[in-house]
Amino acid sequence: MRIDIISAVPQLLESPFSHSILKRAQDKGLLHIQVHNLRDYTPYSHKQIDDYPYGGGAGMVLMPEPLARAIESLKAQRAYDEIIFLTPDGEPFTQAVANRLSLKQTLMLICGHYKGIDERIREHFVTMELSIGDYVISGGELAAAVVTDAVARLIPGVLNDETSALSDSFQDQLLSPPVYTRPADFRGWKVPEILLSGDHEKIARWRYEKALERTRQRRPQLLSHSEDPEKTT
Amino acid sequence: MRIDIISAVPQLLESPFSHSILKRAQDKGLLHIQVHNLRDYTPYSHKQIDDYPYGGGAGMVLMPEPLARAIESLKAQRAYDEIIFLTPDGEPFTQAVANRLSLKQTLMLICGHYKGIDERIREHFVTMELSIGDYVISGGELAAAVVTDAVARLIPGVLNDETSALSDSFQDQLLSPPVYTRPADFRGWKVPEILLSGDHEKIARWRYEKALERTRQRRPQLLSHSEDPEKTT
Repeated sequence: MRIDIISAVPQLLESPFSHSILKRAQDKGLLHIQVHNLRDYTPYSHKQIDDYPYGGGAGMVLMPEPLARAIESLKAQRAYDEIIFLTPDGEPFTQAVANRLSLKQTLMLICGHYKGIDERIREHFVTMELSIGDYVISGGELAAAVVTDAVARLIPGVLNDETSALSDSFQDQLLSPPVYTRPADFRGWKVPEILLSGDHEKIARWRYEKALERTRQRRPQLLSHSEDPEKTT
Repeated sequence: MRIDIISAVPQLLESPFSHSILKRAQDKGLLHIQVHNLRDYTPYSHKQIDDYPYGGGAGMVLMPEPLARAIESLKAQRAYDEIIFLTPDGEPFTQAVANRLSLKQTLMLICGHYKGIDERIREHFVTMELSIGDYVISGGELAAAVVTDAVARLIPGVLNDETSALSDSFQDQLLSPPVYTRPADFRGWKVPEILLSGDHEKIARWRYEKALERTRQRRPQLLSHSEDPEKTT
């Protein structure tokens, strides 16, 4: 998979892709991530990329011309399955969306910054708008990193053990059960006996019950969701 | 505000706090962010911090002892208003939660990695569990960065223009209206006339209507939520 990210502050994205799982995925050749500096595409003097909003008000808006040029420059090099704008008013990003995107070959992610991007880019260039949650952050960079991470780890071969992703929260509409590791007695707090029993059938049932119980308590709406018809795994 | 972050992969967090708004907030002395390497607190040989889960199954679990030592070492230095574990089964992080946290003085954020952290740490040390969304990412580091960003930008003085945060999406239970900047005519696509009119009352009304329309179309449930009683702004 190839992911191109257009950002006004590409330095923000230096470290999240250079360590741990995303680094290994790139080292294995399963993933290519390229971050592009929006300022490299502006035709304006002083590398200007933002300006005041029409109609007044606080905050700066990313201008349409540099964004259009960046998008068109990338599209001239290859086709993109989706051109995604990260924005708090986008479609909520969920595990089902991550599953779908993990089957794509090429994604372009556009990060807003400051007050947002000119609406005409959203109307005429963007194919998908995603929100990582109902809160506001300073720019789309962290959102792009979150989407990239969630999607990339689903690509077969990226995680060392493929079942590791399949047993994650949400993959079966359930939250994960509690996990424990050594020591069995930590300051008097003990690991549940059953996990030490070696009885794999009982352990599996205990985990399912705990997952169900936790989901009922913490996110009952996950249980009432019908299966996403577009969900592919 | 002081935010301490405990991570097994602190390198992931090098760049998100070193640029743009979070850097300026730290330069101004409004925010102090300290990332702590979990491996510095382990008593085990080879700086071990994770081990296999009891009961079998894929993935590694962060051991309780290094986490407990890291938390206790920080608590010995100062009191913490909240000790927050980032986890997909936590309370959904929303703008209302960000507003509340922005009034705190000291936060500790604990990042899971791999399959999770030993449940006993969650039971006995953590005071709050937050989820940035219904998806799984490789570790809590990006989630910690998202929470830090969303909270820090609400601290008075962090943004250049305080009204900039107040007019963001969600602060009034509405998504933001579309924004436009120069040029007024971009490839034949024009900025709505009213934004060029100079009539500030009409512009304010247009923006409110567009915000309402967008919220109805994209996130109707925001309109049905009663005001969060704990919301403080």
